[in-house]
Amino acid sequence: MIPVPKEFLFGAAAAGFKRPDRLDLGVILSARPAQAAGVFTTNKFQAAPVLVCKDRLNASRTARALLANSGQANACTGEEGLRNCRLTQEMVAKALKIEPGEVLPASTGVIGAQLRMDKWKEAMPALKKSLGQVEAMSFARAVMTTDKFPKAAWSSVRVGGKEVRLLGMAKGAGMISPNMATMLGFVLCDADVEPDSWREMLRSCADRSFNRVTVDGDTSTNDCILALANGASGARISGREPNAALEAALLEVLQGLAYMIVQDAEGGTKVARITVTGAADAADAERAARAVGTSPLVKTALFGQDPNWGRIVAAVGRSGAEFDPEDVVLSLGGIVIFAKGRPAQGDLDGVLAPLMRRQDIDIRVSLGAGPGEYSLLASDLTKEYVAINADYRT
Amino acid sequence: MIPVPKEFLFGAAAAGFKRPDRLDLGVILSARPAQAAGVFTTNKFQAAPVLVCKDRLNASRTARALLANSGQANACTGEEGLRNCRLTQEMVAKALKIEPGEVLPASTGVIGAQLRMDKWKEAMPALKKSLGQVEAMSFARAVMTTDKFPKAAWSSVRVGGKEVRLLGMAKGAGMISPNMATMLGFVLCDADVEPDSWREMLRSCADRSFNRVTVDGDTSTNDCILALANGASGARISGREPNAALEAALLEVLQGLAYMIVQDAEGGTKVARITVTGAADAADAERAARAVGTSPLVKTALFGQDPNWGRIVAAVGRSGAEFDPEDVVLSLGGIVIFAKGRPAQGDLDGVLAPLMRRQDIDIRVSLGAGPGEYSLLASDLTKEYVAINADYRT
Repeated sequence: MIPVPKEFLFGAAAAGFKRPDRLDLGVILSARPAQAAGVFTTNKFQAAPVLVCKDRLNASRTARALLANSGQANACTGEEGLRNCRLTQEMVAKALKIEPGEVLPASTGVIGAQLRMDKWKEAMPALKKSLGQVEAMSFARAVMTTDKFPKAAWSSVRVGGKEVRLLGMAKGAGMISPNMATMLGFVLCDADVEPDSWREMLRSCADRSFNRVTVDGDTSTNDCILALANGASGARISGREPNAALEAALLEVLQGLAYMIVQDAEGGTKVARITVTGAADAADAERAARAVGTSPLVKTALFGQDPNWGRIVAAVGRSGAEFDPEDVVLSLGGIVIFAKGRPAQGDLDGVLAPLMRRQDIDIRVSLGAGPGEYSLLASDLTKEYVAINADYRT
Repeated sequence: MIPVPKEFLFGAAAAGFKRPDRLDLGVILSARPAQAAGVFTTNKFQAAPVLVCKDRLNASRTARALLANSGQANACTGEEGLRNCRLTQEMVAKALKIEPGEVLPASTGVIGAQLRMDKWKEAMPALKKSLGQVEAMSFARAVMTTDKFPKAAWSSVRVGGKEVRLLGMAKGAGMISPNMATMLGFVLCDADVEPDSWREMLRSCADRSFNRVTVDGDTSTNDCILALANGASGARISGREPNAALEAALLEVLQGLAYMIVQDAEGGTKVARITVTGAADAADAERAARAVGTSPLVKTALFGQDPNWGRIVAAVGRSGAEFDPEDVVLSLGGIVIFAKGRPAQGDLDGVLAPLMRRQDIDIRVSLGAGPGEYSLLASDLTKEYVAINADYRT
């Protein structure tokens, strides 16, 4: 069903890290060495798998496998956490008959607990047996925590007469306000891409996709995107400059995943696209957009389908962005509702009611102060978000 | 019951701005001109009453009356909002037989709607009649919106052999992350204080009280604290330097109100005192404390009484504060639960369970990077907060 890039095999198993009989361990094997790229969390506390992946990518251009588990984050686990992470590389490398360093690990789940190594050992035979027997989506399912659906996006592009396929998968839901990285994201590509350009394309596309979403403003210790390009399509991209066609396809895949992460935000019912234009510069535009997108009052109003535009204006006003309040224009769903320091005349609530019932809400703020622009996808804040996160560990 | 500073009279009426038969209009009259001070919101969008008060305090040292309404914020209401605000000064001044400029107005409620001037006119006779007939707490009740209890704190201090009384009242609940100001706060004092020193004491004490609380990270368009010192006690503080005894009493009053604002946060069940020490500087300490205090994941865990310390560590890690993760020590209720990059050994959940059931939660983070310190009071994030704010206008 999903057009998978060539020579990638998928495996998944139910190791029982948190709950029994639920896929929580996944692996992707490239039949040949692949150019490997990664973008990682900027959180000062970095999970063991993040540190292990960064070490590998600093030392080598290639990898063979992506390994992911849910249920345990292996973050804030000290030296023992690092040792355990390396042991999981060894186990999987042995099963796949590759080198331990060729396995790039990623974990998600509760912070602080050590990996349950007994469960890892028990699960290895099933994981090995599943390799090539399960579809790609099983890997996406294995990384789900509070996600309600698995997340995959794909694209293809012709390079030098060959079809190049791209497949991305991600895990989203909570602790999401990526900063140069996101929650777990995995990208597979069957072009042969010059490694520096592959890394640059991933960084740039992540910045325009995952780094422009916010669920709850919390940046995780485990955020990472890992990307493998194995060349199995026969297409070769040799230049050091990013390839425009491939980069566009990669951006499409990452933006598709980023949208789904917001759509499946913990307890979320809305996807707000907040676009700020006319800011003094891009940084000011981002400040204003993030103030709106992370405001609990804006987010609860979205959940309540209440066109409470005063909260949007108040968030812009406290954002730190520079502007003259008289020049600000706010529109919701394309309808100007606030300009020249006061609301538009007429039955605003009546006009906006049907727009607020949609899943996708378009919020545009023009500051009238310069050329700066920024766009951000944000979820709403719901009772279910609170319920999920008040009881997450129990 | 409450020891009220001398020569202040209180009035309150039910004008029906939002709901019938609920006090929503209050006034305080000083029998003599009082030294007036104010601290105001830093939001770029400033409500009409904020602009009117700032104008007055820039032009004059004194005022006679404080006027407050709930139900309508008179923010983002343009020129008409300013005109209406001045009309309310005139109405009240006429009823109290003082000058319009001597009335300092404050409003709270929904942003964007114009004041209902017909309701103001209708309420004037009742407001005038109530003056001196109602107790101070009636004024505190008149400014409540989603507050569950009226907020008052008081203190007294001897200056030059005379007893000086201080009374503070406040409105809290939501859109609270004061920045050099808070929601509505009112302070009365019966000392005769040199005006510059009165203003400096208010600014300094506000910075150490209201500016160190956060409910939802949203700074209101209407935040202000207004303070009157009328000299009726006979005590005179003539120096331009802040008086240490009076300042300590003022700080006690403002900190008392600030605590109550967090205690009565919309839907709130917890008061977390987040203390960061050992930061590179005070700004870094504030960054770390605010990252923890505004984290939806930390706040939902508090609500769930879940000692999910990993979320606290993750928030500190993304705060932007500089430190070495190995040097961080986190304690909850005085118990060290995370140090040297990993959790303390033992049955943490068991030890922490009774602490998490308390209303007051003590969170201390030492960064091991320098002498910087900061302390912040934060509420939790609950289903009721979402319910209140999803349906606020309806």
